Amino acid sequence: MQKHDQDYIKRKNRATVFEMIKNNPPLSRAEIARLTGMSPTTISRIVSDLFHLDFMHEIEQETSSVGRKAVLLQVNPRSVLSVGVEIDKTMIRIGVIDLDGRVIGSRTIERQKNEAAEATLGNIAAGINELIEAEDFDRRRIVGIGVGLPGIIDYASGTAVLSAQLGWKQTDIAGILKKLTGLEVAVDNELKVKSLAEHMYGAAKGSSRSVLIGFGSGVGSSLIIDGEIYRGESNSAGEIGHTVVDPGGILCECGKVGCLQTYIAEASLLEQSNKIKPIANLDELFQARRDGEFWAASIIDRAMTFIAVTISNIACMYNPDTVILTGKLVERFSEVREFIADKCMDQFVWEPLRGTFQIVYSAFENDGVVIGSGLLAQSRFLDISSQMEQVELIDN
Amino acid sequence: MQKHDQDYIKRKNRATVFEMIKNNPPLSRAEIARLTGMSPTTISRIVSDLFHLDFMHEIEQETSSVGRKAVLLQVNPRSVLSVGVEIDKTMIRIGVIDLDGRVIGSRTIERQKNEAAEATLGNIAAGINELIEAEDFDRRRIVGIGVGLPGIIDYASGTAVLSAQLGWKQTDIAGILKKLTGLEVAVDNELKVKSLAEHMYGAAKGSSRSVLIGFGSGVGSSLIIDGEIYRGESNSAGEIGHTVVDPGGILCECGKVGCLQTYIAEASLLEQSNKIKPIANLDELFQARRDGEFWAASIIDRAMTFIAVTISNIACMYNPDTVILTGKLVERFSEVREFIADKCMDQFVWEPLRGTFQIVYSAFENDGVVIGSGLLAQSRFLDISSQMEQVELIDN
Repeated sequence: MQKHDQDYIKRKNRATVFEMIKNNPPLSRAEIARLTGMSPTTISRIVSDLFHLDFMHEIEQETSSVGRKAVLLQVNPRSVLSVGVEIDKTMIRIGVIDLDGRVIGSRTIERQKNEAAEATLGNIAAGINELIEAEDFDRRRIVGIGVGLPGIIDYASGTAVLSAQLGWKQTDIAGILKKLTGLEVAVDNELKVKSLAEHMYGAAKGSSRSVLIGFGSGVGSSLIIDGEIYRGESNSAGEIGHTVVDPGGILCECGKVGCLQTYIAEASLLEQSNKIKPIANLDELFQARRDGEFWAASIIDRAMTFIAVTISNIACMYNPDTVILTGKLVERFSEVREFIADKCMDQFVWEPLRGTFQIVYSAFENDGVVIGSGLLAQSRFLDISSQMEQVELIDN
Repeated sequence: MQKHDQDYIKRKNRATVFEMIKNNPPLSRAEIARLTGMSPTTISRIVSDLFHLDFMHEIEQETSSVGRKAVLLQVNPRSVLSVGVEIDKTMIRIGVIDLDGRVIGSRTIERQKNEAAEATLGNIAAGINELIEAEDFDRRRIVGIGVGLPGIIDYASGTAVLSAQLGWKQTDIAGILKKLTGLEVAVDNELKVKSLAEHMYGAAKGSSRSVLIGFGSGVGSSLIIDGEIYRGESNSAGEIGHTVVDPGGILCECGKVGCLQTYIAEASLLEQSNKIKPIANLDELFQARRDGEFWAASIIDRAMTFIAVTISNIACMYNPDTVILTGKLVERFSEVREFIADKCMDQFVWEPLRGTFQIVYSAFENDGVVIGSGLLAQSRFLDISSQMEQVELIDN
C-alpha cells in the first residue's frame, strides 16, 4: 500500500487538520470535516488530541444567520515552540523558535576548533537550559530540538556521518542531546535547514520549488518542494560541490578530478591565492583584485564564471522557481553581486530557462540555520506525537 | 491554503480510494472508511461515482464470523484503458494500455522526416481509430491519450514548445488530437513518460526515487519521486544535456560552451568522427575502434568518461536509489556496458554515494514511451473525472 497505508494516512490527516486550523483560523469542526472530507469522528479524535496537548483553543462566535453561537477553533500562537541550534567551526547559536519561525530568545556560545562532540553537545544542552530558565519559557511547550551543521548527516538516525569542518565522524548527535535534555532531537545538514527557513518564511516565501545554493567552506545546494526538503536516498541530494565540471581539472580532496568545489569553495580560492602570496581570507583576495593584481582578478573571474555555471546547472536539473544564494562569496562582495545581476541570467543560463526563476539572496543571513533547525523540529513533532498516540492505542 | 484546498483534497481522496481498492482488492466500504479516516458519506460519493463509470464491481463474500454476506469492491481489470503514442523522427508507435501497464494492442506507422504536425497528428488519429475498431476495444473504456515525444513540452497545455528532432515549434498537440479523436490528451517529453513506465512496472519497480538517463540524439534525465514525475517549474527538470561540464570546451548548438551533450550526444560523436572519415552511425564508430583506429578509441573513451561523470553528477544532485540507463550508446555496445559495470561506481561516483543506488537498464526498450504515455493518460484521468464531477455539481 506504500503511500496509502494506515499510519501514513493517520499522520497526514493530523497534519492536514493542524495546518488547516493554523492557516485559516478560526474554523469550526463542521467546516474542517467539510473541507477535508474526513468523518466527524476522525476530526473529533484529532482535535481532542490537539486540545489535550493545548495546541488549540476554542472561541465562540455569533453566527450572523441564526444568531446562535458557533464554537470555532484556533491554534495557540505560542503553543508550539522549538529550539534551533547551529553548530559551526568556532561558534554555536541557540534560538527558541515559535510557530511562525520567529526567534523569540537566543544565545551564542564559542566553540574550540576540533572540540570533541561530547564537549560541544554538553555546552549546547547547558546553553538551552540556561536560555529556557533565564527567559522563562514554558518547558512543556518545547516540542523538540533541531540541529543544523555542515557535513553528511544521516537524517533518519540523527547522526553526523562525517563533518570535516567540525572534525566529527559517526557522531550520534540526536542520541547524546536527547539524553542530556530529555527532548526529541532532529539533525540535518545546515544548508537543508536553512533552505527550509528561506522557503517557509524568508526570501523564497510563496515559492513552490526553491533551491538554496551555499557558497562557503564547500559548495552545496538544497531543493525544497512544496515545503518539504528533498533529501534523496541517503540525505545527500544537492551535493553539487562534488559534481564534475572539468574532467581534466584540479584534483579534489574527495579523490575525484574537476569537482565544482575545487573552483569556488573559499578554502580552494585561498589555497590558489597562497601560491602567489599570503592571503588570509576572501576580503584580502578581493582587495588584491581592487589593487589591480592580475592573479587575483584571474582567480575571482574564474570563480564568478563557475558561480554562474552552478546556477545554470542547478536550473537545468531542478527547474526551480526561485534560487536563493547564500555564503560570504556571493553575499559580501559587490563585484560578485553585480556580475550575477548583469550576466548570469543572460549569458550563462540555458535559453529556454531564462526568466523561469528569480535569483534572490538569503533573508536570514545569520539566523537561517537556527530558524530552519527549529522549524524542522516542529515539523517532526506532528509525526512524533502521532506515533506516541499509536503507542497509547496499543496499550489500551 | 495551497496544498490543502478543497479541490486538491477532493481529487486526492478520489485517487486514494481508487488506488486503495486497486491495490488491495477486495475491500468493503467500511474498511475503506476505516483505513482512510474519510466519512461514510465521502466514501459513498466517490464509490458511486466510480461505479457509475463502471470502474468498480461488487462481489459478495461470506464473512466467517457471523455468516452474513459482506459486499466487497474491486476494480474491473480492463475498466480503464488508455492509448499511448510515441512520436519519433521517422516512426510513430501507438498502443492500447491497460491498468497494469500492459500493451494489449499496437500499431506502428511511418513518419516522413520533418512532416508537418497536422499530417502526423492526422495519421495518429486515424491509426488509433483503426486499432480500436480492428481489435474491438470498448471505446467507452478508453480514458485518454498520452503522447511522448522529444523536445521541450509545456505539460500543462499539451503543447510542444520546441521539438528540434521533429521540426515542430509551438505545436498544440493536445488541442489538435482532442479535436480529431474526442479524447482527453496528455503530452510530455519522451524521457519523462519512459521514466514513469520503468518506475511503475519496469526496471525500477519498487523504487522510491529513480532517475532515468537517456543517451540519444540529446542527453536528458527524468526524476520520479514516489510515482510522480518531478517536472519543475516549466517541465524542464532533468535537462542535464545542457549542464556545463567544461567551461573551456566545445560550443553547443544552444549557444553555451561545454554543455554535456557536446561530448556524448550521438550527433556530436558522429560530427567529431566525420572530421576524420565518413561515419554514418554509432555502429561504424565502434567498429572503427575495434579495428584499432586511434581517433575512434579517443572519441569513445572520452564519451565513456562523460557517461560515468553524468551518472555521478546525477547521483550527487538527485541521490536516487536507482539509475535507469537507456539509449543506443549505453544499451547496444558491450564496451560501454562493461566500462559502466567495471569503473563507474568505483572510480567516478563520489565516495559517500557508492552503493547507495543501483544502475539498471531499461526493461521496456521499444515500448517504454508508449507504456509511459498510456500510464500518464490514466493518471491524469482521476483528476479530469473529478473536474467533470465538479462541473456537474455546479450545474445542479
